[in-house]
Amino acid sequence: MAAAAMTIHLNAFLMGVGHHEAAWRHPRTDENSVLDVGHFQNLGRIAERGKLDSVFFADGLAVGANVARNTPSVFEPITLLSAIATVTEHVGLIATASTSYNTPFTLARAFASLDHISAGRAGWNIVTSAGADEAANFGLDGIPEHHVRYARADEFVRVALQLWDSWEPGSLVLDTATGRFADPDKVHRINHEGELFRVRGPLNVPRSPQGRPLLVQAGSSDAGKDFAARYAEAVFTAQRTLTDGTRFYRDLKGRLARYGRSRDELKILPGIVAFLGSTQAEADALEREFTELISPDYALRQLSNMLGIDVTRHDLDTPLPPLGDVTVIEGNKSRFQLVKDLAEREQLTVRELIGKLGGGRGHRSFTGTPEALADDIERWVTAGAADGFNIMPPYLPGGLEVFVDHVVPILRRRGLFRTEYGGDTLRANYGLPEHQGGTGAFVSTAGTP
Amino acid sequence: MAAAAMTIHLNAFLMGVGHHEAAWRHPRTDENSVLDVGHFQNLGRIAERGKLDSVFFADGLAVGANVARNTPSVFEPITLLSAIATVTEHVGLIATASTSYNTPFTLARAFASLDHISAGRAGWNIVTSAGADEAANFGLDGIPEHHVRYARADEFVRVALQLWDSWEPGSLVLDTATGRFADPDKVHRINHEGELFRVRGPLNVPRSPQGRPLLVQAGSSDAGKDFAARYAEAVFTAQRTLTDGTRFYRDLKGRLARYGRSRDELKILPGIVAFLGSTQAEADALEREFTELISPDYALRQLSNMLGIDVTRHDLDTPLPPLGDVTVIEGNKSRFQLVKDLAEREQLTVRELIGKLGGGRGHRSFTGTPEALADDIERWVTAGAADGFNIMPPYLPGGLEVFVDHVVPILRRRGLFRTEYGGDTLRANYGLPEHQGGTGAFVSTAGTP
Repeated sequence: MAAAAMTIHLNAFLMGVGHHEAAWRHPRTDENSVLDVGHFQNLGRIAERGKLDSVFFADGLAVGANVARNTPSVFEPITLLSAIATVTEHVGLIATASTSYNTPFTLARAFASLDHISAGRAGWNIVTSAGADEAANFGLDGIPEHHVRYARADEFVRVALQLWDSWEPGSLVLDTATGRFADPDKVHRINHEGELFRVRGPLNVPRSPQGRPLLVQAGSSDAGKDFAARYAEAVFTAQRTLTDGTRFYRDLKGRLARYGRSRDELKILPGIVAFLGSTQAEADALEREFTELISPDYALRQLSNMLGIDVTRHDLDTPLPPLGDVTVIEGNKSRFQLVKDLAEREQLTVRELIGKLGGGRGHRSFTGTPEALADDIERWVTAGAADGFNIMPPYLPGGLEVFVDHVVPILRRRGLFRTEYGGDTLRANYGLPEHQGGTGAFVSTAGTP
Repeated sequence: MAAAAMTIHLNAFLMGVGHHEAAWRHPRTDENSVLDVGHFQNLGRIAERGKLDSVFFADGLAVGANVARNTPSVFEPITLLSAIATVTEHVGLIATASTSYNTPFTLARAFASLDHISAGRAGWNIVTSAGADEAANFGLDGIPEHHVRYARADEFVRVALQLWDSWEPGSLVLDTATGRFADPDKVHRINHEGELFRVRGPLNVPRSPQGRPLLVQAGSSDAGKDFAARYAEAVFTAQRTLTDGTRFYRDLKGRLARYGRSRDELKILPGIVAFLGSTQAEADALEREFTELISPDYALRQLSNMLGIDVTRHDLDTPLPPLGDVTVIEGNKSRFQLVKDLAEREQLTVRELIGKLGGGRGHRSFTGTPEALADDIERWVTAGAADGFNIMPPYLPGGLEVFVDHVVPILRRRGLFRTEYGGDTLRANYGLPEHQGGTGAFVSTAGTP
């Protein structure tokens, strides 16, 4: 049973034609695929061929700072995953959506709909949207403060959880003889009256196959980790070293008990961008090809966004000036800290820094053979730094295919990864218990509609 | 060319397992299909087999008043249409969405995404959401007033139009050699600062195949007709008599010139619920089977909703008391007027009234043979009451199949309906010019991001 205990989880984090910011320019991709739904359906099929737990789309509610060079995503994730759902059967479908710029009823409903469409494979990556460009598209003059965003996220999620449970298990009767469509005693108003939201309910979608989507989160600030410990079932995280990864893992798992949860109820998946080749030299050469395609002007804008500081006119061949303390940052705190650590620890010039960041916007990158990547994955899992990985192919579909066809078989031979899907839902893929509804603080006490 | 001038447009208005409120109880339907995405994909395929212009889903943002007896829709329309898009190639895909309970950026983006996923087949049925149950799910104590809803709808649509045009034709360059992803001179901020919305833009989705979705509307109040005359390209409407239909058609077409539009730029499609049989007697018997399955308690609640008056305790075998004037109604004015006219003109008892309304919530119903329905359709089109019809099958999929297989061929033989799809987009199906962008009041004058 030792092998079973070590079984890992793998999510394919998909973005356009690859995570590398210059992927669309490389001959291994077809740049026209950025707007081709068939390309994304194909990625879903490849992930399913590899028996991966899930595919995942990030999201931002504004075009990037430099649309002349790239734009990270063009489809809205929930509609895109609905299209992918129709050509797959097992792989989970995780969409990012913002608690700052949606309303609980509408978003809870969209995920319930996706969970029905996919027969129980929907997941929600909960984000609070730290960008000023995003705020400007929703009538705000600046980014809401970090603690304000998290307070809204907390109430938002509590409302959504109640809405998903507003149709109890067994509430849909469909008895044609008596004309009883649903049992009104099992369909509840939630009558939520909070600081930010007033929502009566019930949801206008009957209970979905999973009861509610898998809840995913990625924040690494203190507030983010507490939020994850309270609600998340999977966490995607950027950890560049085994030391950082182990510390983050221990920290987050340690917080679960405060919320009455066990360590197994949340899976931690660090991101990894892998340039793979049949030899180290081949992998190194491939990575170099991508690095050489980076447009410095685009990379400097991306770097400015990550730091919340304009560095677009900075000399490429000198290091950044000392960066301030993370406590004063109102944007994405964890990304700021990661870039600061990288720049200061390795004393990188800006050119070196943007090269290291180009593959995955700060996520760890790996360059080598499939065997070496499998070793690396096993090392992280064994060391207690990960329950699995968030696979971020630098180019698509090729980078996902090489992972599925050359790394996954090695992981299987070592007993680290499944050979078949075991259950019917995304929650089952992650080895989590099915949601039964009406538990804990979310019991609906209100009357029927 | 006389036949070509008379060519009609047909939309399949789909709802669960049929428009009749008791459809789910009838042996011709499978009640479990209400939650089966495959059922809805099949309906899309059937409509496409018949070369219909489009399929359409209504929507409400609350469960109905009597969930024990029925709930009209369970999927969110945009996600559902995304799933249907993947199994069809030509049929248009029209989703209802509310301007009262969405934000322009998010909704514009979802439709742009659906238009990409469907390769140019997205349509938006614009509604202002007149229900009190809906208001309660979004923090409001009551229904916003009619003129307030329409003022919001107007500004909402103006913002959405600007967002869809924020990426000009040709803005996406994808030149791998130079690294030019998009032309920043063709991607614009909209800098909208209105009464209700402040939105900077540009949209975070490159220009979609149609430029923007087909715009559809269904309001029949004075404000509704002006709104339609200004923005809509198709109008779904409930007209019970040829006299009413002709008057509505003349009125609405007559308003187009005020907005600089020609009569051909808006297609009017009255709804029709058809019980079809190979003889009149067979059709009558079929309709009776459905009427007998109506639950009076449910029907009385539906009637109360349409009137905005509680009639649930009214005696079934006496007529309604005189109804007030439509001008005091803040809810759905056109539906109120229609029920009032029907009840008063025909001096119906409540039992008779709910029987007449059961098939299509007030839309006209027809009971007879396919030949007679084709005659009826031709009569309305010839009389200048319709550019086509909004087909509302009382039961699904059978009611759509019989229309496609037995009525459509007759319409074709008469030269009234297409034999093949002529263009690639929903706008082409409706014989409308493709949207070129940046026209009229919606030219973007702002700078680049």
